[in-house]
Amino acid sequence: MNAKKLQNWKILENRKCYEAPPWISHSVHKVSLPDGQVIDDFNQVEIPDYAVVVATTPGGLFILERQYKHGIGKVSLTLPGGTINAGEDPLDAAKRELLEETGLATESWEHLGTYVGDANYGCGRAYVLRAWNAVQVAHPNSGDLEEMEIVQMTKEEILENLVLGEIIAVAAVAALGIAIIGGNNSPFRAA
Amino acid sequence: MNAKKLQNWKILENRKCYEAPPWISHSVHKVSLPDGQVIDDFNQVEIPDYAVVVATTPGGLFILERQYKHGIGKVSLTLPGGTINAGEDPLDAAKRELLEETGLATESWEHLGTYVGDANYGCGRAYVLRAWNAVQVAHPNSGDLEEMEIVQMTKEEILENLVLGEIIAVAAVAALGIAIIGGNNSPFRAA
Repeated sequence: MNAKKLQNWKILENRKCYEAPPWISHSVHKVSLPDGQVIDDFNQVEIPDYAVVVATTPGGLFILERQYKHGIGKVSLTLPGGTINAGEDPLDAAKRELLEETGLATESWEHLGTYVGDANYGCGRAYVLRAWNAVQVAHPNSGDLEEMEIVQMTKEEILENLVLGEIIAVAAVAALGIAIIGGNNSPFRAA
Repeated sequence: MNAKKLQNWKILENRKCYEAPPWISHSVHKVSLPDGQVIDDFNQVEIPDYAVVVATTPGGLFILERQYKHGIGKVSLTLPGGTINAGEDPLDAAKRELLEETGLATESWEHLGTYVGDANYGCGRAYVLRAWNAVQVAHPNSGDLEEMEIVQMTKEEILENLVLGEIIAVAAVAALGIAIIGGNNSPFRAA
C-alpha cells in the first residue's frame, strides 16, 4: 500500500447549483486527487448540522418518537433531535429539541460523537448526544409539522423494533448503536 | 394522542430542480399534511440505493477500509460497499463491491436491514449486508477513485476507533452497530 495515496482531495472550484436557505443547498466541486486526476463535477449536498438525542428516563427507558418523516415516506420510530441553529452549541440544540419535542429535560449529558450523513455527498453532520435521567418538566411543544407519539422503550424493545424495520433512519440506528454498544458508562467522546 | 394525525403526507407535486445522472438529483415536493396544511417546497435528495458490507474473516476479524471520502473531507475508516446498479440485486451489489474493493468473497450472507440516509431529505437507502467467513480470492481491483488501505480489526478495535472518531460515516456506524448488537447469530432481517 502506498501511504502517499491516502491524502485528502483538493477542491479547485466550488460552484453552488441549488439553494433553498436555510434548509439545503447543492454544490458541484471540481477536485484534484493525490494521483493528479481531476474530477470536474463531484456533487455535494449541504444540510445544517443536526442533533440526535439518545435519552433515557431515571428508570432506564429509551425515548423514541413515532412519526411520519418525509425522507422516509412513512410512519416510523425516530429519535428526538433536529437542526442546530446557526451559532448554536450542539448541546444547547439537543436540550432545546428534547424539551420541545418531548417536554423532557436533564442536566446529565454526554457527547457520543459527530458523524457525517453521507460519505460521498456530505448531507450534514449528526451530533449524537446522550441524555440520562431525563424527566418530564413541560408538555411537548413541537412545531406544526411534528405531530408524533412519544414512546418509552427498553433496550430489548429497541432491538425488536430494529428487527421489525420500525427504526429505519440511519442516524437513529447509528446513535442507538453506539449508545447501546457503549452502555451507560460509554467512553465515547469522539470530537 | 390523536392517532389520526400519524398518517403519511401526500405528494401533490414533484418538481425536479437539479439532476446529475446517474449520481444524484434534487426535487421539491408540494405536500399536504394530515391536518390539511400544505407545504409548497419540501426538498428531497435522490441518491441510488447502496450496499454497506459488514464482513468478517474466518477468524472473526472485521474488514474496514481506510480511505479519503469527499463527503467526509478527510481520511477515515469506512466499510466496503457502494452503489447498487439499476436492476441489480442488493446482495449481488454487496458481493461485487466486497470483491472489487477487498478481493474477499463468501457465500455466507445475511441482510441486516435497509435504512434511509436522511429522515427529512431521503438521501438514498443503505442495504446493510453481513458477510461471514470472507476469504481472499483475488486482488483488490477498485476504481481509480478508491485508493485505500484494507484493515482487519477486532470488535474491541472497532470500539476504540469509534471513540477516536476514526469511523464517522453514519451508515458505517449504523451497520457496525446493528452487526455488533445482534452478534453473529443476529436475528435482524428487516426488509
